[in-house]
Order: sequence, then structure tokens, then C-alpha cells
Amino acid sequence: MSVQIEIVEGAIGPRAGDQRAAVGDGVGAHVVFEGIVRGDEGGKKIAGLEYQAYEPMAGKQLKLLAEEIVRKHGLIELEVRHSRGMVRVGEVSFRLMVRSAHRKEALAAMDEFIDRMKKDVPIWKKAVP
Amino acid sequence: MSVQIEIVEGAIGPRAGDQRAAVGDGVGAHVVFEGIVRGDEGGKKIAGLEYQAYEPMAGKQLKLLAEEIVRKHGLIELEVRHSRGMVRVGEVSFRLMVRSAHRKEALAAMDEFIDRMKKDVPIWKKAVP
Repeated sequence: MSVQIEIVEGAIGPRAGDQRAAVGDGVGAHVVFEGIVRGDEGGKKIAGLEYQAYEPMAGKQLKLLAEEIVRKHGLIELEVRHSRGMVRVGEVSFRLMVRSAHRKEALAAMDEFIDRMKKDVPIWKKAVP
Repeated sequence: MSVQIEIVEGAIGPRAGDQRAAVGDGVGAHVVFEGIVRGDEGGKKIAGLEYQAYEPMAGKQLKLLAEEIVRKHGLIELEVRHSRGMVRVGEVSFRLMVRSAHRKEALAAMDEFIDRMKKDVPIWKKAVP
């Protein structure tokens, strides 16, 4: 099992094209979730979101959460990237990648990870008009 | 709303690296699921899986299912690619991409799409030793 966490400045760049070279024999499901900044927040047009992370707490809590989710769902790999600072509309501010033997645990893990991250990890966003 | 379906010969190639240029203002979630052939099937080592699709029925049913899932979950975009023929261990035989305003409907749609595809769409697999 492998866990990677990164808090990056600004928007998250494109994924490397072909990651399949690194897939082990036991991986049956590879899922990538990207959270993208939408053009309105609470009904108002915005230019982007400004993320503030309380560090190093945010990174530590992301790591603890990632390790717990990997154990609980029996995942093979999990990678998280979250932005801090300004992310414009249409850009990616969060990416979660999960690999597991089967689909069900990958999707369940993804859902639980995001729910708990939003509740427990000290990263806040502020609309930028 | 946009739906794309493709049944391709052999393994499914890597995604285009950066698809974000095309994201509209309303997209908040972009999720990609890849199904990868694992090294064992029912406890036996295999070299790959051979997929047989009953066409054109398989393509038609994939399209109907995709359209229904897009409407039901209010998705913005859905793309499906499924292999026919030989796919080796570690290669991708199925890719589903979903875009929606929020995360919950994207993950629910993905789960329901795959469940129903496995049940209703005439594509079968055979282990190749």
C-alpha cells in the first residue's frame, strides 16, 4: 500500500498521460476524482477561489485520513493533491487518485475520503469576485 | 449534456493529458474510472481477458444506458469506452468519464452505470491463460 499527499501552490496541473506502466498485477480499478472551481458560488459569479490551509496541520491530517481510508477499504494506492492560494474558474483545486483490486472499494473510499476531508481537514475557501 | 460511446479493438490507450481546456463554467467534478485486467481470475493466473461484444446491440444498449444515467443524475458529460477482443493483464479494458456540477451525482452515476452495464449490456469476457 502506498499513500502520497501534497498541498500545492495554485491550481493543480494535468495528470501525467499514461500511468499504467506502474500498475501492479492486483490492480483492477483506477479512479481519479478532480474537483474543479465552478463559475458561481452561492448564486454569484466569481473569478476563482482562494484556499487557505492551516499548515502543517492540514498536511498531517490529510495523511492520517489517507492512511486510515487505505486500511479501512483495503486500497492498493491513494494519492491526494490539494491547492492552497488562488485557483481560477475551470481549474483543478483537488485531485484524488485511488487504486484497488475492485471497483466497489475504490468508489466507497473516494466518497468517504472527500466527506471527511471537508469536515476535518483545516483548509478553507473564500470566493474571489 | 453530452454522451459519447465507443467500443474499441483491444486495450484502451492513455487519456489525453489535459482535458481541462474544454471544461465549462458549471463543471465542479470530473471523475474517471478505469477497469484494468488483473493477473488472476477465480484464483488462476491469466495472461489476459478476451472480450466478446454482441454488436450492434452492445453499442446501442451502452448508449441508452448512458443517456438514462445522464438524465437521472443530471450529469453534464459522460464518455464510455469498452474493449472487445484481447486485453492483457495491466491494460485498461473499460473507461468511464463523468462530469457534473457536484461530486455526489458523479460518483452515484458511476456506480450505477457500471452495475447496470455488467448486468444488461451483452459484453462477455473469457480468461486467456
